[in-house]
Amino acid sequence: MSRARRRLEEMDLTLPSPPAPAGAYRRAVEAAGLVFVAGQLPLVDGRMILQGVVGDGGLPVEEGREAARQCALNALGVLAAEGYDLDRTRIVRMTGYVASVDGFEGQAQVVDGASELMADVLGESGVHARVAVGVGSLPLGAPVELEVIATGER
Amino acid sequence: MSRARRRLEEMDLTLPSPPAPAGAYRRAVEAAGLVFVAGQLPLVDGRMILQGVVGDGGLPVEEGREAARQCALNALGVLAAEGYDLDRTRIVRMTGYVASVDGFEGQAQVVDGASELMADVLGESGVHARVAVGVGSLPLGAPVELEVIATGER
Amino acid sequence: MSRARRRLEEMDLTLPSPPAPAGAYRRAVEAAGLVFVAGQLPLVDGRMILQGVVGDGGLPVEEGREAARQCALNALGVLAAEGYDLDRTRIVRMTGYVASVDGFEGQAQVVDGASELMADVLGESGVHARVAVGVGSLPLGAPVELEVIATGER
Repeated sequence: MSRARRRLEEMDLTLPSPPAPAGAYRRAVEAAGLVFVAGQLPLVDGRMILQGVVGDGGLPVEEGREAARQCALNALGVLAAEGYDLDRTRIVRMTGYVASVDGFEGQAQVVDGASELMADVLGESGVHARVAVGVGSLPLGAPVELEVIATGER
Repeated sequence: MSRARRRLEEMDLTLPSPPAPAGAYRRAVEAAGLVFVAGQLPLVDGRMILQGVVGDGGLPVEEGREAARQCALNALGVLAAEGYDLDRTRIVRMTGYVASVDGFEGQAQVVDGASELMADVLGESGVHARVAVGVGSLPLGAPVELEVIATGER
Repeated sequence: MSRARRRLEEMDLTLPSPPAPAGAYRRAVEAAGLVFVAGQLPLVDGRMILQGVVGDGGLPVEEGREAARQCALNALGVLAAEGYDLDRTRIVRMTGYVASVDGFEGQAQVVDGASELMADVLGESGVHARVAVGVGSLPLGAPVELEVIATGER
Protein backbone atom coordinates (compact mmCIF):
# COMPACT_ATOMS: atom_id res chain seq x y z
CA MET A 1 0.00 0.00 0.00
CA SER A 2 1.26 3.48 -0.79
CA ARG A 3 2.45 5.76 2.00
CA ALA A 4 -0.29 8.27 1.23
CA ARG A 5 -3.03 5.64 1.33
CA ARG A 6 -1.68 4.18 4.57
CA ARG A 7 -1.67 7.69 6.01
CA LEU A 8 -5.28 8.26 4.92
CA GLU A 9 -6.24 4.99 6.58
CA GLU A 10 -4.52 5.99 9.83
CA MET A 11 -6.42 9.27 9.69
CA ASP A 12 -9.61 7.29 9.14
CA LEU A 13 -10.20 9.01 5.81
CA THR A 14 -11.45 7.47 2.58
CA LEU A 15 -10.27 8.82 -0.74
CA PRO A 16 -13.49 9.98 -2.39
CA SER A 17 -14.48 9.10 -5.94
CA PRO A 18 -14.34 12.49 -7.59
CA PRO A 19 -17.67 14.17 -8.16
CA ALA A 20 -18.50 14.81 -11.81
CA PRO A 21 -17.56 18.28 -13.03
CA ALA A 22 -20.38 20.78 -12.40
CA GLY A 23 -20.15 22.02 -16.00
CA ALA A 24 -18.55 21.73 -19.42
CA TYR A 25 -15.00 21.01 -18.30
CA ARG A 26 -12.55 18.31 -17.13
CA ARG A 27 -11.68 17.51 -13.53
CA ALA A 28 -7.94 17.85 -14.26
CA VAL A 29 -5.65 18.75 -17.15
CA GLU A 30 -1.90 18.20 -17.36
CA ALA A 31 0.24 20.55 -19.44
CA ALA A 32 3.88 21.61 -19.45
CA GLY A 33 4.60 19.40 -16.44
CA LEU A 34 1.88 20.79 -14.21
CA VAL A 35 -1.47 19.25 -13.28
CA PHE A 36 -4.31 21.76 -12.99
CA VAL A 37 -7.15 20.38 -10.88
CA ALA A 38 -10.60 21.91 -11.40
CA GLY A 39 -12.04 23.91 -8.48
CA GLN A 40 -13.10 21.57 -5.69
CA LEU A 41 -16.16 22.07 -3.49
CA PRO A 42 -16.86 20.38 -0.13
CA LEU A 43 -19.02 17.66 -1.67
CA VAL A 44 -19.41 14.17 -0.21
CA ASP A 45 -21.31 11.70 -2.38
CA GLY A 46 -22.58 14.57 -4.47
CA ARG A 47 -23.91 16.55 -1.51
CA MET A 48 -22.44 19.68 0.01
CA ILE A 49 -21.39 18.97 3.62
CA LEU A 50 -21.86 22.61 4.55
CA GLN A 51 -23.39 25.66 2.89
CA GLY A 52 -23.20 29.35 3.68
CA VAL A 53 -20.70 32.09 4.32
CA VAL A 54 -18.02 32.11 7.01
CA GLY A 55 -17.76 34.80 9.70
CA ASP A 56 -19.87 36.62 12.28
CA GLY A 57 -23.50 35.67 11.83
CA GLY A 58 -22.52 32.90 9.41
CA LEU A 59 -20.57 29.66 9.76
CA PRO A 60 -17.86 29.56 12.44
CA VAL A 61 -14.21 29.34 11.30
CA GLU A 62 -14.03 25.73 12.51
CA GLU A 63 -16.75 24.67 10.07
CA GLY A 64 -15.04 26.58 7.29
CA ARG A 65 -11.85 24.65 8.04
CA GLU A 66 -13.76 21.39 7.83
CA ALA A 67 -15.16 22.38 4.44
CA ALA A 68 -11.66 23.35 3.25
CA ARG A 69 -10.34 20.00 4.42
CA GLN A 70 -13.01 18.20 2.41
CA CYS A 71 -12.11 20.22 -0.70
CA ALA A 72 -8.48 19.12 -0.29
CA LEU A 73 -9.52 15.48 0.13
CA ASN A 74 -11.63 15.77 -3.03
CA ALA A 75 -8.63 17.19 -4.91
CA LEU A 76 -6.58 14.16 -3.85
CA GLY A 77 -9.48 11.97 -4.98
CA VAL A 78 -9.34 13.60 -8.42
CA LEU A 79 -5.58 13.10 -8.70
CA ALA A 80 -5.89 9.43 -7.72
CA ALA A 81 -8.81 8.85 -10.09
CA GLU A 82 -6.79 10.44 -12.90
CA GLY A 83 -4.13 7.82 -12.29
CA TYR A 84 -1.53 9.87 -10.43
CA ASP A 85 0.52 8.03 -7.82
CA LEU A 86 -0.06 10.06 -4.65
CA ASP A 87 3.38 9.08 -3.36
CA ARG A 88 4.91 10.92 -6.31
CA THR A 89 2.47 13.85 -6.26
CA ARG A 90 3.58 17.27 -5.13
CA ILE A 91 1.17 20.07 -4.29
CA VAL A 92 2.62 23.24 -5.82
CA ARG A 93 0.08 26.00 -5.34
CA MET A 94 -3.40 26.21 -3.85
CA THR A 95 -5.89 29.05 -3.97
CA GLY A 96 -8.63 28.90 -1.35
CA TYR A 97 -11.73 30.98 -1.99
CA VAL A 98 -13.72 31.47 1.21
CA ALA A 99 -17.32 32.69 0.99
CA SER A 100 -17.14 35.36 3.69
CA VAL A 101 -19.45 37.75 5.51
CA ASP A 102 -18.42 41.38 5.04
CA GLY A 103 -15.42 42.24 7.15
CA PHE A 104 -14.34 38.64 7.81
CA GLU A 105 -10.55 38.53 8.12
CA GLY A 106 -9.86 34.87 8.96
CA GLN A 107 -9.56 33.34 5.47
CA ALA A 108 -6.04 32.09 6.23
CA GLN A 109 -7.24 30.01 9.19
CA VAL A 110 -10.06 28.55 7.10
CA VAL A 111 -7.79 27.56 4.22
CA ASP A 112 -5.31 26.07 6.72
CA GLY A 113 -7.83 23.23 6.96
CA ALA A 114 -6.92 22.31 3.38
CA SER A 115 -3.21 23.04 3.71
CA GLU A 116 -2.87 20.91 6.83
CA LEU A 117 -4.63 17.97 5.22
CA MET A 118 -2.23 18.06 2.28
CA ALA A 119 0.79 18.11 4.61
CA ASP A 120 -0.68 15.37 6.81
CA VAL A 121 -1.30 13.03 3.88
CA LEU A 122 1.64 13.80 1.59
CA GLY A 123 4.26 15.01 4.06
CA GLU A 124 6.79 17.51 2.68
CA SER A 125 5.39 17.07 -0.85
CA GLY A 126 2.07 18.38 0.39
CA VAL A 127 3.45 21.78 1.47
CA HIS A 128 2.68 24.41 -1.15
CA ALA A 129 2.53 28.12 -1.95
CA ARG A 130 -0.88 29.49 -1.13
CA VAL A 131 -3.39 32.23 -1.76
CA ALA A 132 -6.45 32.74 0.49
CA VAL A 133 -9.15 35.23 -0.45
CA GLY A 134 -12.68 36.06 0.65
CA VAL A 135 -15.49 36.09 -1.89
CA GLY A 136 -19.19 36.86 -1.72
CA SER A 137 -20.61 33.58 -2.96
CA LEU A 138 -19.57 30.28 -4.49
CA PRO A 139 -21.20 27.64 -6.72
CA LEU A 140 -24.00 25.65 -5.03
CA GLY A 141 -23.67 27.76 -1.90
CA ALA A 142 -20.31 26.26 -0.94
CA PRO A 143 -18.45 28.02 1.90
CA VAL A 144 -15.06 27.15 0.35
CA GLU A 145 -13.69 26.35 -3.10
CA LEU A 146 -10.15 25.10 -3.60
CA GLU A 147 -7.98 25.32 -6.71
CA VAL A 148 -4.92 23.06 -6.82
CA ILE A 149 -1.86 23.01 -9.08
CA ALA A 150 0.31 19.91 -8.64
CA THR A 151 3.02 17.85 -10.25
CA GLY A 152 2.64 14.11 -10.56
CA GLU A 153 3.40 10.91 -12.38
CA ARG A 154 1.07 8.22 -13.64
CA MET B 1 -8.54 28.25 -43.62
CA SER B 2 -7.88 26.77 -40.21
CA ARG B 3 -10.41 24.43 -38.60
CA ALA B 4 -10.96 26.89 -35.74
CA ARG B 5 -11.60 29.82 -38.10
CA ARG B 6 -13.96 27.73 -40.23
CA ARG B 7 -15.80 26.78 -37.06
CA LEU B 8 -16.06 30.43 -35.97
CA GLU B 9 -17.46 31.29 -39.39
CA GLU B 10 -20.06 28.51 -39.15
CA MET B 11 -21.03 29.87 -35.73
CA ASP B 12 -21.27 33.32 -37.29
CA LEU B 13 -18.62 34.67 -34.94
CA THR B 14 -15.82 37.06 -35.74
CA LEU B 15 -12.53 36.79 -33.91
CA PRO B 16 -12.22 40.16 -32.19
CA SER B 17 -9.12 42.32 -32.29
CA PRO B 18 -8.01 42.21 -28.69
CA PRO B 19 -8.81 45.28 -26.62
CA ALA B 20 -5.77 47.10 -25.26
CA PRO B 21 -4.82 46.09 -21.73
CA ALA B 22 -6.70 48.17 -19.14
CA GLY B 23 -3.45 48.90 -17.29
CA ALA B 24 0.32 48.51 -17.08
CA TYR B 25 0.54 44.93 -18.32
CA ARG B 26 0.64 42.66 -21.40
CA ARG B 27 -2.31 40.84 -22.94
CA ALA B 28 -0.43 37.49 -22.82
CA VAL B 29 2.90 36.12 -21.62
CA GLU B 30 4.43 32.74 -22.46
CA ALA B 31 6.74 31.05 -19.98
CA ALA B 32 7.80 27.48 -19.29
CA GLY B 33 5.55 26.16 -22.06
CA LEU B 34 2.37 27.84 -20.87
CA VAL B 35 0.61 30.91 -22.22
CA PHE B 36 -0.96 33.12 -19.56
CA VAL B 37 -3.67 35.34 -21.03
CA ALA B 38 -4.56 38.52 -19.12
CA GLY B 39 -8.05 38.65 -17.57
CA GLN B 40 -10.66 39.13 -20.29
CA LEU B 41 -13.79 41.25 -19.92
CA PRO B 42 -16.93 41.09 -22.13
CA LEU B 43 -15.83 44.00 -24.30
CA VAL B 44 -16.81 44.42 -27.95
CA ASP B 45 -15.07 47.24 -29.81
CA GLY B 46 -13.95 48.65 -26.48
CA ARG B 47 -17.44 48.69 -24.96
CA MET B 48 -18.82 46.37 -22.32
CA ILE B 49 -21.72 44.37 -23.78
CA LEU B 50 -23.28 44.00 -20.33
CA GLN B 51 -22.67 45.50 -16.91
CA GLY B 52 -23.87 44.56 -13.45
CA VAL B 53 -24.04 41.60 -11.12
CA VAL B 54 -25.65 38.25 -11.85
CA GLY B 55 -28.46 36.76 -9.74
CA ASP B 56 -31.83 37.67 -8.25
CA GLY B 57 -32.48 41.36 -8.76
CA GLY B 58 -29.49 41.60 -11.11
CA LEU B 59 -28.71 40.13 -14.52
CA PRO B 60 -30.29 36.78 -15.37
CA VAL B 61 -28.00 33.75 -15.71
CA GLU B 62 -28.53 33.72 -19.48
CA GLU B 63 -27.01 37.20 -19.81
CA GLY B 64 -24.12 36.18 -17.57
CA ARG B 65 -23.50 33.23 -19.91
CA GLU B 66 -23.46 35.57 -22.88
CA ALA B 67 -20.90 37.79 -21.15
CA ALA B 68 -18.78 34.73 -20.30
CA ARG B 69 -18.95 33.61 -23.93
CA GLN B 70 -17.70 37.01 -25.08
CA CYS B 71 -14.79 36.84 -22.60
CA ALA B 72 -13.82 33.47 -24.10
CA LEU B 73 -14.03 34.84 -27.63
CA ASN B 74 -11.82 37.77 -26.58
CA ALA B 75 -9.27 35.33 -25.11
CA LEU B 76 -9.15 33.52 -28.46
CA GLY B 77 -8.73 36.91 -30.13
CA VAL B 78 -5.72 37.61 -27.91
CA LEU B 79 -4.16 34.25 -28.69
CA ALA B 80 -4.63 34.76 -32.44
CA ALA B 81 -3.30 38.34 -32.31
CA GLU B 82 -0.24 37.09 -30.42
CA GLY B 83 0.45 34.78 -33.34
CA TYR B 84 -0.72 31.45 -31.92
CA ASP B 85 -2.22 28.99 -34.40
CA LEU B 86 -5.66 28.25 -32.93
CA ASP B 87 -5.58 24.76 -34.44
CA ARG B 88 -2.59 23.98 -32.24
CA THR B 89 -3.86 25.82 -29.16
CA ARG B 90 -5.04 23.92 -26.13
CA ILE B 91 -7.02 25.52 -23.32
CA VAL B 92 -5.56 24.17 -20.08
CA ARG B 93 -7.24 26.00 -17.22
CA MET B 94 -9.81 28.77 -16.96
CA THR B 95 -10.94 30.72 -13.94
CA GLY B 96 -14.27 32.50 -14.33
CA TYR B 97 -15.02 35.32 -11.89
CA VAL B 98 -18.72 36.11 -11.81
CA ALA B 99 -19.88 39.40 -10.23
CA SER B 100 -22.73 37.98 -8.14
CA VAL B 101 -25.53 39.21 -5.93
CA ASP B 102 -25.28 37.87 -2.37
CA GLY B 103 -26.37 34.27 -2.20
CA PHE B 104 -26.13 33.58 -5.94
CA GLU B 105 -25.13 29.94 -6.46
CA GLY B 106 -25.15 29.57 -10.25
CA GLN B 107 -21.59 30.60 -11.13
CA ALA B 108 -20.95 27.25 -12.83
CA GLN B 109 -23.82 27.75 -15.29
CA VAL B 110 -22.58 31.26 -16.08
CA VAL B 111 -19.00 30.18 -16.72
CA ASP B 112 -20.30 27.29 -18.87
CA GLY B 113 -20.94 29.99 -21.47
CA ALA B 114 -17.17 30.39 -21.79
CA SER B 115 -16.36 26.70 -21.48
CA GLU B 116 -18.85 25.71 -24.17
CA LEU B 117 -17.52 28.31 -26.59
CA MET B 118 -13.98 26.96 -26.18
CA ALA B 119 -15.17 23.40 -26.83
CA ASP B 120 -17.33 24.49 -29.79
CA VAL B 121 -14.45 26.32 -31.47
CA LEU B 122 -11.45 24.16 -30.56
CA GLY B 123 -13.05 20.75 -30.07
CA GLU B 124 -11.29 18.42 -27.62
CA SER B 125 -8.40 20.92 -27.27
CA GLY B 126 -10.84 23.45 -25.89
CA VAL B 127 -11.89 21.33 -22.91
CA HIS B 128 -10.08 22.48 -19.78
CA ALA B 129 -9.90 22.32 -15.99
CA ARG B 130 -12.00 25.09 -14.50
CA VAL B 131 -12.64 27.23 -11.47
CA ALA B 132 -15.82 29.32 -11.11
CA VAL B 133 -16.20 31.79 -8.24
CA GLY B 134 -18.53 34.63 -7.30
CA VAL B 135 -17.09 38.06 -6.55
CA GLY B 136 -18.58 41.36 -5.49
CA SER B 137 -17.44 43.56 -8.35
CA LEU B 138 -15.18 43.55 -11.40
CA PRO B 139 -13.27 46.16 -13.40
CA LEU B 140 -15.47 48.55 -15.38
CA GLY B 141 -18.60 46.96 -13.93
CA ALA B 142 -18.16 43.73 -15.89
CA PRO B 143 -20.44 40.84 -14.88
CA VAL B 144 -17.74 38.27 -15.75
CA GLU B 145 -13.96 38.18 -16.02
CA LEU B 146 -12.14 35.20 -17.49
CA GLU B 147 -8.56 34.11 -16.90
CA VAL B 148 -7.10 31.59 -19.35
CA ILE B 149 -3.98 29.44 -19.28
CA ALA B 150 -3.23 27.71 -22.59
CA THR B 151 -0.54 25.98 -24.56
CA GLY B 152 0.17 26.96 -28.13
CA GLU B 153 2.56 27.28 -30.99
CA ARG B 154 3.37 30.24 -33.19
CA MET C 1 25.24 45.65 -7.15
CA SER C 2 22.48 44.19 -9.28
CA ARG C 3 20.49 46.41 -11.62
CA ALA C 4 17.30 45.66 -9.71
CA ARG C 5 18.84 46.58 -6.35
CA ARG C 6 20.34 49.76 -7.77
CA ARG C 7 16.91 50.65 -9.13
CA LEU C 8 15.30 50.02 -5.74
CA GLU C 9 17.90 52.28 -4.13
CA GLU C 10 17.22 55.05 -6.66
CA MET C 11 13.52 54.70 -5.87
CA ASP C 12 14.37 54.92 -2.17
CA LEU C 13 12.88 51.49 -1.55
CA THR C 14 14.20 48.74 0.69
CA LEU C 15 13.65 45.13 -0.22
CA PRO C 16 11.68 43.79 2.74
CA SER C 17 12.49 40.60 4.57
CA PRO C 18 9.51 38.45 3.71
CA PRO C 19 6.89 38.09 6.41
CA ALA C 20 6.37 34.55 7.66
CA PRO C 21 3.53 32.71 5.92
CA ALA C 22 0.20 33.36 7.67
CA GLY C 23 -0.57 29.62 7.72
CA ALA C 24 0.54 26.08 6.93
CA TYR C 25 2.29 26.79 3.64
CA ARG C 26 5.51 27.99 1.97
CA ARG C 27 6.23 31.50 0.76
CA ALA C 28 7.22 30.21 -2.71
CA VAL C 29 7.41 26.91 -4.58
CA GLU C 30 9.17 26.25 -7.89
CA ALA C 31 7.89 23.55 -10.21
CA ALA C 32 8.10 22.88 -13.95
CA GLY C 33 10.13 26.03 -14.49
CA LEU C 34 7.72 28.42 -12.78
CA VAL C 35 7.95 30.03 -9.36
CA PHE C 36 4.64 30.35 -7.55
CA VAL C 37 4.78 33.02 -4.85
CA ALA C 38 2.26 32.79 -2.01
CA GLY C 39 -0.36 35.56 -1.84
CA GLN C 40 1.23 38.79 -0.63
CA LEU C 41 -0.46 41.30 1.67
CA PRO C 42 0.60 44.94 2.22
CA LEU C 43 2.56 44.17 5.37
CA VAL C 44 5.57 46.15 6.55
CA ASP C 45 7.46 44.67 9.50
CA GLY C 46 4.53 42.37 10.16
CA ARG C 47 1.96 45.18 10.22
CA MET C 48 -0.63 46.00 7.60
CA ILE C 49 0.06 49.48 6.19
CA LEU C 50 -3.62 49.92 5.32
CA GLN C 51 -6.83 48.06 6.10
CA GLY C 52 -10.31 48.26 4.64
CA VAL C 53 -12.12 48.14 1.33
CA VAL C 54 -11.49 50.37 -1.67
CA GLY C 55 -14.17 52.55 -3.25
CA ASP C 56 -16.82 55.12 -2.33
CA GLY C 57 -17.09 55.36 1.45
CA GLY C 58 -13.94 53.25 1.83
CA LEU C 59 -10.29 53.80 0.96
CA PRO C 60 -9.53 56.03 -2.03
CA VAL C 61 -8.02 54.43 -5.13
CA GLU C 62 -4.68 56.12 -4.42
CA GLU C 63 -4.37 54.27 -1.09
CA GLY C 64 -5.33 51.02 -2.77
CA ARG C 65 -2.54 51.59 -5.28
CA GLU C 66 -0.08 52.14 -2.45
CA ALA C 67 -1.17 48.87 -0.83
CA ALA C 68 -0.81 47.06 -4.17
CA ARG C 69 2.67 48.51 -4.58
CA GLN C 70 3.67 47.20 -1.15
CA CYS C 71 2.35 43.73 -2.06
CA ALA C 72 4.56 43.77 -5.15
CA LEU C 73 7.59 44.87 -3.15
CA ASN C 74 6.91 42.04 -0.70
CA ALA C 75 6.75 39.55 -3.58
CA LEU C 76 10.17 40.74 -4.75
CA GLY C 77 11.37 40.37 -1.15
CA VAL C 78 10.20 36.75 -1.15
CA LEU C 79 11.94 36.00 -4.45
CA ALA C 80 15.20 37.55 -3.21
CA ALA C 81 14.99 35.75 0.14
CA GLU C 82 14.42 32.46 -1.72
CA GLY C 83 17.71 33.07 -3.50
CA TYR C 84 16.46 34.21 -6.91
CA ASP C 85 18.64 36.74 -8.72
CA LEU C 86 16.24 39.63 -9.40
CA ASP C 87 18.18 40.53 -12.54
CA ARG C 88 17.24 37.17 -14.00
CA THR C 89 13.68 37.14 -12.65
CA ARG C 90 10.73 37.57 -14.97
CA ILE C 91 7.23 38.33 -13.73
CA VAL C 92 4.88 36.14 -15.79
CA ARG C 93 1.40 36.57 -14.38
CA MET C 94 -0.10 38.49 -11.47
CA THR C 95 -3.58 38.32 -10.01
CA GLY C 96 -4.58 41.31 -7.89
CA TYR C 97 -7.50 40.81 -5.52
CA VAL C 98 -8.92 44.17 -4.41
CA ALA C 99 -11.25 44.28 -1.39
CA SER C 100 -13.94 46.51 -2.88
CA VAL C 101 -17.12 48.27 -1.83
CA ASP C 102 -20.14 47.12 -3.81
CA GLY C 103 -20.15 48.61 -7.28
CA PHE C 104 -16.47 49.65 -7.28
CA GLU C 105 -15.14 49.42 -10.83
CA GLY C 106 -11.55 50.68 -10.50
CA GLN C 107 -9.70 47.45 -9.65
CA ALA C 108 -7.42 47.86 -12.68
CA GLN C 109 -6.15 51.25 -11.47
CA VAL C 110 -5.51 49.83 -8.00
CA VAL C 111 -3.57 46.83 -9.27
CA ASP C 112 -1.58 49.12 -11.58
CA GLY C 113 0.24 50.15 -8.38
CA ALA C 114 1.72 46.65 -8.28
CA SER C 115 2.25 46.33 -12.04
CA GLU C 116 4.07 49.66 -12.27
CA LEU C 117 6.39 48.77 -9.40
CA MET C 118 7.37 45.54 -11.13
CA ALA C 119 8.10 47.36 -14.39
CA ASP C 120 9.98 50.15 -12.56
CA VAL C 121 12.24 47.71 -10.73
CA LEU C 122 12.70 44.92 -13.29
CA GLY C 123 12.21 46.79 -16.57
CA GLU C 124 10.84 44.71 -19.46
CA SER C 125 11.11 41.54 -17.37
CA GLY C 126 8.65 43.01 -14.91
CA VAL C 127 5.84 43.38 -17.44
CA HIS C 128 3.35 40.54 -17.07
CA ALA C 129 -0.10 39.21 -17.94
CA ARG C 130 -2.59 40.31 -15.32
CA VAL C 131 -5.94 39.65 -13.73
CA ALA C 132 -7.64 42.22 -11.45
CA VAL C 133 -10.79 41.33 -9.53
CA GLY C 134 -12.84 42.79 -6.70
CA VAL C 135 -13.54 40.71 -3.61
CA GLY C 136 -15.52 41.28 -0.44
CA SER C 137 -12.79 40.78 2.13
CA LEU C 138 -9.20 39.61 2.47
CA PRO C 139 -7.07 38.05 5.21
CA LEU C 140 -6.29 40.39 8.13
CA GLY C 141 -8.46 43.10 6.59
CA ALA C 142 -6.02 43.77 3.74
CA PRO C 143 -7.31 46.02 0.95
CA VAL C 144 -5.22 44.16 -1.65
CA GLU C 145 -3.71 40.70 -2.04
CA LEU C 146 -1.31 39.88 -4.85
CA GLU C 147 -0.51 36.51 -6.37
CA VAL C 148 2.63 36.27 -8.51
CA ILE C 149 3.91 33.63 -10.93
CA ALA C 150 7.49 34.21 -12.07
CA THR C 151 10.48 32.56 -13.66
CA GLY C 152 13.89 32.85 -12.09
CA GLU C 153 17.31 31.44 -11.46
CA ARG C 154 19.19 30.97 -8.23
